[in-house]
Amino acid sequence: MRLSRSFFPTLKEDPKEAQSPAHKITLKAALIKMLLGGVYSYLPLGFFLLKNIERVIREEMLKCGAQEVLLPALQPVQLWIDSGRDSVIGDIMFRFQDRRGRNLCLGPTHEEVITDLVKGFINSYKQLPIVLFQIQTKFRDEIRPRFGLVRSCEFIMKDAYSFDSNWEGLDKNYKAMFEAYRRIFKRCGLDSLSLQADTGIMGGAESSEFMVLSDSGEDKVNFCKTCNKYFPFSEGDNKCVECGRKSEVKAVLELGHIFKLGTKYSEKLGLYFLDEEGKRLPVIMGCYGIGVSRMVVAVVEKHMEKKGVIFPLEVAPFEVILVSLDSSNSEIVSCAERVYEKLEKKVRILFDDRNKLPAGVKLNDASLIGSPFFIIVGKRFLSEGKIEIEVRREKKKIMVREEEILSVLTKLIKNERKEC
Amino acid sequence: MRLSRSFFPTLKEDPKEAQSPAHKITLKAALIKMLLGGVYSYLPLGFFLLKNIERVIREEMLKCGAQEVLLPALQPVQLWIDSGRDSVIGDIMFRFQDRRGRNLCLGPTHEEVITDLVKGFINSYKQLPIVLFQIQTKFRDEIRPRFGLVRSCEFIMKDAYSFDSNWEGLDKNYKAMFEAYRRIFKRCGLDSLSLQADTGIMGGAESSEFMVLSDSGEDKVNFCKTCNKYFPFSEGDNKCVECGRKSEVKAVLELGHIFKLGTKYSEKLGLYFLDEEGKRLPVIMGCYGIGVSRMVVAVVEKHMEKKGVIFPLEVAPFEVILVSLDSSNSEIVSCAERVYEKLEKKVRILFDDRNKLPAGVKLNDASLIGSPFFIIVGKRFLSEGKIEIEVRREKKKIMVREEEILSVLTKLIKNERKEC
Repeated sequence: MRLSRSFFPTLKEDPKEAQSPAHKITLKAALIKMLLGGVYSYLPLGFFLLKNIERVIREEMLKCGAQEVLLPALQPVQLWIDSGRDSVIGDIMFRFQDRRGRNLCLGPTHEEVITDLVKGFINSYKQLPIVLFQIQTKFRDEIRPRFGLVRSCEFIMKDAYSFDSNWEGLDKNYKAMFEAYRRIFKRCGLDSLSLQADTGIMGGAESSEFMVLSDSGEDKVNFCKTCNKYFPFSEGDNKCVECGRKSEVKAVLELGHIFKLGTKYSEKLGLYFLDEEGKRLPVIMGCYGIGVSRMVVAVVEKHMEKKGVIFPLEVAPFEVILVSLDSSNSEIVSCAERVYEKLEKKVRILFDDRNKLPAGVKLNDASLIGSPFFIIVGKRFLSEGKIEIEVRREKKKIMVREEEILSVLTKLIKNERKEC
Repeated sequence: MRLSRSFFPTLKEDPKEAQSPAHKITLKAALIKMLLGGVYSYLPLGFFLLKNIERVIREEMLKCGAQEVLLPALQPVQLWIDSGRDSVIGDIMFRFQDRRGRNLCLGPTHEEVITDLVKGFINSYKQLPIVLFQIQTKFRDEIRPRFGLVRSCEFIMKDAYSFDSNWEGLDKNYKAMFEAYRRIFKRCGLDSLSLQADTGIMGGAESSEFMVLSDSGEDKVNFCKTCNKYFPFSEGDNKCVECGRKSEVKAVLELGHIFKLGTKYSEKLGLYFLDEEGKRLPVIMGCYGIGVSRMVVAVVEKHMEKKGVIFPLEVAPFEVILVSLDSSNSEIVSCAERVYEKLEKKVRILFDDRNKLPAGVKLNDASLIGSPFFIIVGKRFLSEGKIEIEVRREKKKIMVREEEILSVLTKLIKNERKEC
């Protein structure tokens, strides 16, 4: 892709409205743009990042045997009354009447809808287990949206739901999801920690939360240096649950939460099946959420540096950005064009082919666009016939001849992949 | 993929609520499921179909140089007041207040939002042209939703927007989109017709509608047999605009609509740029929509047959369905397993490996799942060592030996691709 034909309108100045360093980068790199408080558009660069994160999540869900569906945002309030959650969830759920007088809401989550959906099709243990997931837009009427995509009124979630005929099946699905979550966060370059957590409004028997240490975090955990262990935050004396020493309090951002729901929703909403002996039993459910928009912030926050970001290879909008530094020099320009042509089909590459821009502007933009590799064609090409490859994470610069560029870059990318 | 582990809950009986033959198939094949009137969930099979249609659209948009974004569903009503469309669009737009007292609506379209978005970044002719698109969920408060996905309250659209500094640029983008639309419909196996149309609530200078002949159609066109030409429907005497003879009235389903918007939105919402002489001018816009959910219905309707569908290769959820007809026979079962293993990585294949089901049930389901190719391992394998490949569109059955299966199937698929 050519930057001259792209709509990547990075900002020169730091945006005033930024509420955190990561929020600043997401705005400055033009990943997102606020429409109104708590409501954001994804610009092309942010959309690439989002889709790469979604791809990782999707791949790991499919590995768990989950099948993708797409449920509506519009839901009948009646389903929430039936499940008993209407009054519990309160005003955080957008509600309105349509012209036909139907009481509707915008789904902040989809336990009710998916239970109702599966109920229409399942009646025997032979049809179980089933695991379904979607990557879809949710809505919450937040009074205080914060940190851009961290707490917003409209956001993207991956929500998966498992349906089993016995508790061993639920345990198995829960464990598979747990492992999938660890892989997802790792592939996105995040050090996630997981803790047993409250089941809260979801209900059910057991839940685990997945978090990352984060300045944008709204939650807290305790960390004991001595035991090198995290445990749920307590308002009290913060003593380590293992050694009894005083622990530190750390801010964390919740990215995922998985629940053994059990039979709460199936009983309330009538999702039953016949077991081998013909006995009618409620289906045993689990639910598994990831805040996809939040992952965008978490990835940026974890991988930002002074002037921009160094995205992990797997989710980087572009693996490589190729910069021709002096567009007034025809030798430099035509070398950069040749390099682009050679690499275009082999790697996800962005070519900064823009004319008449100072080197500083181009390099600033490259830092914001965040590719882990820079290829720079500049004066060294004129004097020595050499092109620079920068492995940003290692702060390493390698000078190569034009004809070596593909083989050296391919090797570097392969190495980077291995480390992930 | 194995059918035994899939959630493809086809219906045995015709669904009573179906309002048209195509609607019946979408329900019976379990492509979609109604949550409430006008609001549908996509089940796994429907999701595959939807994603394949989206892929075709996305590929053709990228060929036009369009870049993908994702805009929010939540919009401030103020933008609609500013554009002058708030009163014109009326009650079809969902509106409500959030807890902070903000007047919000759910976007039925995104001209206002995208104009506002681009306004934040563009100020010079050097930054133009730009073409942006999204594939996103829209909302309409329909009083009479109809025919399943044809007219619903929540639906998926592809909407693209072009931004130019001069009218020649708009003409060029409009023409590129026109051609892209023809290719999109063709690749999805649809015979689209296009007519100049009213600009209606969108406003602007010129527009073209893309339609298919359809029993689910809510619009009409005139067709002159003599001239073999379609023209806009007139309530009057239906005389052909060319030869003056009486024309026929045909029902059509609108799938796409493209508009030369001109400067309506840029003037109202303040999207201006400086031209080469430093003159401040409104940006010239176009907008280009496709009803993606509607395409699902159109594709089903066009390709349905007595018992199910024969999807065009490009959008078929699976190119091939492999059926082992007699699961009590171990020779048949193990041959089917070998064939599956051989083909799994080469084609998009679904393997009906279900146990203890009558052949009739399996073949009915295969028809509903709609792959253009069937591979059937049955009694002929026992008696002659032959496997059946059915090229459904041609009603042709070919008997092949097990070792030939990959080469014969690959050739057949290649042929089918050529014809598209």
